[in-house]
Amino acid sequence: MFEKVLIANRGEIALRVLRACRELGVRTVVVHSSADVDSLPVRLADETVRIGPAPSRQSYLNAAAIVEAARQTGAQAVHPGYGFLSEDADFAEICVENGLVFVGPPPQVMSALADKSTARALMSRAGLPLPPGSVRTLPTVAEALDVAAEVGYPVIVKAAAGGGGRGMTVVRSAAALPRAYGRTRAAAQAAFGDDRVYVERYLTDARHVEVQVLCDGHGNGVHLGTRDCSVQRRHQKLVEEAPAPALSAATLDTLAETALRGALAVGFTGAGTVEFLVDEAERCHFLEINCRIQVEHPVTEMVTGIDLVHEQLHIAAGVPLRWRQEEIRLHGVSVECRVNVEDPDRDFAPTPGRLERFRPPGGPFTRVDTHGHAGYLVSPHYDSLLAKVAVWAPDRPSALDRLERALGEFDVAGPGVRTTIPFVRRVLDDAAFRKARHTTGLVDRLLADRAPVPAQPAPAANPGTSVRRTR
Amino acid sequence: MFEKVLIANRGEIALRVLRACRELGVRTVVVHSSADVDSLPVRLADETVRIGPAPSRQSYLNAAAIVEAARQTGAQAVHPGYGFLSEDADFAEICVENGLVFVGPPPQVMSALADKSTARALMSRAGLPLPPGSVRTLPTVAEALDVAAEVGYPVIVKAAAGGGGRGMTVVRSAAALPRAYGRTRAAAQAAFGDDRVYVERYLTDARHVEVQVLCDGHGNGVHLGTRDCSVQRRHQKLVEEAPAPALSAATLDTLAETALRGALAVGFTGAGTVEFLVDEAERCHFLEINCRIQVEHPVTEMVTGIDLVHEQLHIAAGVPLRWRQEEIRLHGVSVECRVNVEDPDRDFAPTPGRLERFRPPGGPFTRVDTHGHAGYLVSPHYDSLLAKVAVWAPDRPSALDRLERALGEFDVAGPGVRTTIPFVRRVLDDAAFRKARHTTGLVDRLLADRAPVPAQPAPAANPGTSVRRTR
Repeated sequence: MFEKVLIANRGEIALRVLRACRELGVRTVVVHSSADVDSLPVRLADETVRIGPAPSRQSYLNAAAIVEAARQTGAQAVHPGYGFLSEDADFAEICVENGLVFVGPPPQVMSALADKSTARALMSRAGLPLPPGSVRTLPTVAEALDVAAEVGYPVIVKAAAGGGGRGMTVVRSAAALPRAYGRTRAAAQAAFGDDRVYVERYLTDARHVEVQVLCDGHGNGVHLGTRDCSVQRRHQKLVEEAPAPALSAATLDTLAETALRGALAVGFTGAGTVEFLVDEAERCHFLEINCRIQVEHPVTEMVTGIDLVHEQLHIAAGVPLRWRQEEIRLHGVSVECRVNVEDPDRDFAPTPGRLERFRPPGGPFTRVDTHGHAGYLVSPHYDSLLAKVAVWAPDRPSALDRLERALGEFDVAGPGVRTTIPFVRRVLDDAAFRKARHTTGLVDRLLADRAPVPAQPAPAANPGTSVRRTR
Repeated sequence: MFEKVLIANRGEIALRVLRACRELGVRTVVVHSSADVDSLPVRLADETVRIGPAPSRQSYLNAAAIVEAARQTGAQAVHPGYGFLSEDADFAEICVENGLVFVGPPPQVMSALADKSTARALMSRAGLPLPPGSVRTLPTVAEALDVAAEVGYPVIVKAAAGGGGRGMTVVRSAAALPRAYGRTRAAAQAAFGDDRVYVERYLTDARHVEVQVLCDGHGNGVHLGTRDCSVQRRHQKLVEEAPAPALSAATLDTLAETALRGALAVGFTGAGTVEFLVDEAERCHFLEINCRIQVEHPVTEMVTGIDLVHEQLHIAAGVPLRWRQEEIRLHGVSVECRVNVEDPDRDFAPTPGRLERFRPPGGPFTRVDTHGHAGYLVSPHYDSLLAKVAVWAPDRPSALDRLERALGEFDVAGPGVRTTIPFVRRVLDDAAFRKARHTTGLVDRLLADRAPVPAQPAPAANPGTSVRRTR
């Protein structure tokens, strides 16, 4: 195992990686921006290096500064977390050139998979079913119109370089396509420096189902079952669960085996996620492979008992996979929700600010991953994810009741700060969600029901009546 | 299931029961003293009733006020937690007389088991092995001297009405017995209103191993495996784990089956714990049965996936046991430690005071049960238990590493406040404990090594050096 690992991230995932390192006896170096000087991962790290000012481009995306920090501190490996440089093949390459182990797949595999168009072609060759649409990118609007006419509307225009729900536009008619095509290309150029796009049939009544895989550098791989992440707002996940509910055992098996086959076919190593859309007839359509730890990895950990970040580090250190497929058993159900600092009533716009109160839930089968604390300043510079609350129970209804209980005791408040907690509680109350009959359209349906989302009542205020309060 | 349950307790266990009720859709009434008006269970309860001033005798031990609160609020059942009235058969009887369900065994079973001397006789009849000593109580010092001479020194003088580690004195020679005998009787009279005592051989190099059982009101029972609680200071547990390590599978099976047989033989219902001392030759000696939820129940929950408080409520509501023995599987290892507000350097004397900082650990496979929060006033009126930190891992070394990690990030501080965290960390570092070769003598040995216990370093203070801190 490594003696020292540099953590090139911030927030809850930096803390998550730090915890894994500490449990394995690995010293940690946390790099950080000026904005995060007092953050929890920085306070808890063995060593810290300030690499630049608040804007990500000058700090968390500053590959040269990160590699220099590793050199100065003698770190042997770099864990990129998710987001930022985690899917940047160039950064992985720079790490390797500087004698550092990048905790992730080889740069050339990352590079192939980061291009969604290439990934689609590779996966198609490995036998994975694609949604109807173009395998190659479409350099003219005329070609886009042809593909769309062939697969039928609605379609989705996707940036080849996109990912994590960014760089895509849904189009409902041929009349709307030219503008959407142009806009997506421009946005992709601005965001990723690459304006190539392709067109796919947009599956409306589908579930987002993904498979967690672990592959070592010795040709071994296992899958750790499925997750359902259909509860999304603007293609960003809000509630995730494992295993995916309401699908037949045959479909779940097929998904898992197909995903692992695809990952092994492209020489993937590390912890990866193969994403699918599953339609009403349980037909599966490959979407993309993510080469990094996912935000929602805790639900897989809770049903398998396997610490995915430990496994990432073991694999990166060259250790052969410590699990055989038959040793991986799924127990019960885990559900996680994201607590984002956002206003669900204003299209989930971020509401940064200082937290005056912060007391996350606790108790049985309840896990909280958060870098938040009372007094914490939620910065406008970064992602709005403040906490993840994950629960486990023997069955899905009990898990949902437990998550509802946990959210009810989460006390977070600050001037102007709103969170997704009340909206998630509305999801948990939804009849279709309770029966696991929801699709990726759930959030839009809830938003269309214009009953205003109530602000989270402070758990401090006793919701019932005190019958004899004689203080 | 009940519609409304009254929780007759305080602190972390009141919160624990409240969480279980909420998950089952049961409304909660929390009764409390004046000192606990702003406590977390009171804030989170559906209804609250203040039943008296801070001293326990006038509030948490005030049976009449509790029953009256249940009548006023329409609660159908009373959950007593642990401590206070949880093992008081008279209180259980009063509940039943007032039409309330007492969450625990029938009063007559409690009464028989609360008298340790009677419990010993009953268990001996059920075939459970007792430690060498007197089955009956010893009304004269002459009889005590006779028994001690027969079983050999050291012996332990125990109050028949004692429990939870209180009301016992170790005696190393005949010369010391008369004084210890008199003192134990006087103390028992003062604490329990009952001065009967008995004498047992004191097993020095033994492990404290206990078995969790669940029995319903229909004659069904299951065991949920073992726990080791050998790490004790003054007969109070500090670190607990499940399953008990380093014992043969045959011994573990025998313990579990013997315990369940004993519980069923006496008509026990609810969640109970059968405690044993296991000597170096793995001979098992019955100690006592506890009729209530134990402080250390989380470790059993973490290895079985069964919520013990849910099960207590189901059993009390008359539901037949929801598990068959073959459905109960143990996975991995769970270790818990108690974070008490005490000074290990002054014989674990309580150090009450206000908490200025309080941030418990989080992350994977880490559970915290606590009523603490920043600003909380630890009262001198009550037990010093502030939090329980429990972790799970696939194996014992990983679980110990995880607990060490979790304790390292626990930030709790206030003027004059000390906690058992540094002492527990010393336990986790101990070579014998690491190898599971420790016995109930571990804490005394660590205290005898007079290296002073360092104060918990604030996790806020970066323990390493910042190589480039340019803030």
